[in-house]
Amino acid sequence: MAGETVLWVDGTQGSVLPLPDRGLDFGDGLFETLLLQGSRALHVELHLARLRRGCSTLGFPECELAVLGQLRQAAAAAGERGWPWSALRITLSRGAGPRGYAPPAEPVPRVIARLTNLGEAPSAMAKPAALGLATVRWALQPALAGIKHLNRLEQVLAAREYRESGLDEAVMLDQQGAVVSVVAGNLFIVRGGELLTAPVDACGIAGTRRELVMRRWAPALGLVVREQTLTIDQLESASEVFYSNSLMGLRPVARYRQRCWESHSTCEALYRLYQGELA
Amino acid sequence: MAGETVLWVDGTQGSVLPLPDRGLDFGDGLFETLLLQGSRALHVELHLARLRRGCSTLGFPECELAVLGQLRQAAAAAGERGWPWSALRITLSRGAGPRGYAPPAEPVPRVIARLTNLGEAPSAMAKPAALGLATVRWALQPALAGIKHLNRLEQVLAAREYRESGLDEAVMLDQQGAVVSVVAGNLFIVRGGELLTAPVDACGIAGTRRELVMRRWAPALGLVVREQTLTIDQLESASEVFYSNSLMGLRPVARYRQRCWESHSTCEALYRLYQGELA
Repeated sequence: MAGETVLWVDGTQGSVLPLPDRGLDFGDGLFETLLLQGSRALHVELHLARLRRGCSTLGFPECELAVLGQLRQAAAAAGERGWPWSALRITLSRGAGPRGYAPPAEPVPRVIARLTNLGEAPSAMAKPAALGLATVRWALQPALAGIKHLNRLEQVLAAREYRESGLDEAVMLDQQGAVVSVVAGNLFIVRGGELLTAPVDACGIAGTRRELVMRRWAPALGLVVREQTLTIDQLESASEVFYSNSLMGLRPVARYRQRCWESHSTCEALYRLYQGELA
Repeated sequence: MAGETVLWVDGTQGSVLPLPDRGLDFGDGLFETLLLQGSRALHVELHLARLRRGCSTLGFPECELAVLGQLRQAAAAAGERGWPWSALRITLSRGAGPRGYAPPAEPVPRVIARLTNLGEAPSAMAKPAALGLATVRWALQPALAGIKHLNRLEQVLAAREYRESGLDEAVMLDQQGAVVSVVAGNLFIVRGGELLTAPVDACGIAGTRRELVMRRWAPALGLVVREQTLTIDQLESASEVFYSNSLMGLRPVARYRQRCWESHSTCEALYRLYQGELA
């Protein structure tokens, strides 16, 4: 049944985390959310590459074997249960430690996993989304930008706000007012026949599907993609807007505040490539 | 024995956290670290006031009764064990929730507590500290500044760095290069007979002992305190430097990189007031 979950902590099925844990104490950790089709996890290499960058940034020891082991275990569990589509969140925490911010010299990271049954196959692209503008903005923090660490309060506050407004998502700006992303995805705009997306070297997350759009799907359509600072004006005057994330792939934007878009042809063409790879 | 700990989760002694938990998943929570003298927690009102501000910022429901209950329980435990001084970290997480950044409409926060025996009474002020300069800087984030939330990776990275350099602490700048704090404390500098400290409305934490210095101890000495943007030049040309936190109270700074200070008279005078209140 959609919504069912299974949890693991360090490879053992169970739903309790030993304390103390620096993931809880300081958000001292990383995570990845993978889409599973049956017992097959999609685009594992892209998730592992981002996790490796995160481990390097935070100074975690090598954890890839443990993460891969957990991934195989969860994929097998999804297969056994006959779940058609699942979301797998793998959290890597720096583990236990003494009091205080300084991590132990020899941390023993923990792998926590949560597998959720998403139910039936998304047979078509999600319906075009209604977006608001988040009040909270991304802080500029080059030391942590791009990676998927556990310090996610900005997105929590922004998500709480759009949810209360009955919207599907919200545009998030940086502290200087540039358009960066939506809360749970990277934003793309079509302008003058080009695809534009914001850089993620000062804030935001380098999405796995963002990378696929930029390196694979857009080039396959002969579309030029440019990474550049985006303004609200550019967003509002775009001919088309969509966003990407690991669970939905790509989702077109129907409106941002008062501005509406009828055409989603670029997103549809990219989505066909995305879906063709799933088949 | 110093270093011994006791843990509670939602008022029950134990060291496992039920999963999923948004504190772990997103750093969606707050914490306070209180100093206990025997079974007496110090400056509880200041900690509760900051926690209330944090709850309001994050949109948590009223949690004060649960926090106070945990505080009483931990204080009694410290008394029963005969621990002369203890550190009590109380963590408030938004609790369980479905997948995704958006918090549940009716969250049920969890109270997690960790009591650590600090051993013998600190009979004197801590020895003057050797400070480095942290490579990582505070991001400017007015929406979260001042409160003590669980997104603390900047401080984790900075602490890791100074610890590896064999130093006691490190000065942390903001993204614009202004001096803000040390990793685990608020910084004060003495210049022209005045006490200066950085504002905490765009980044940093509004420390409880910072507030006591500003509102009580410095005025008691007839010392003017000004909250203003501080430059590295001002730090280096200060006649005296110290920092404050809840466990040490106040600690003088012996050196910052090449710059050394011999005089700690202001810090010593403030520390006498601090210690006088403990007696």
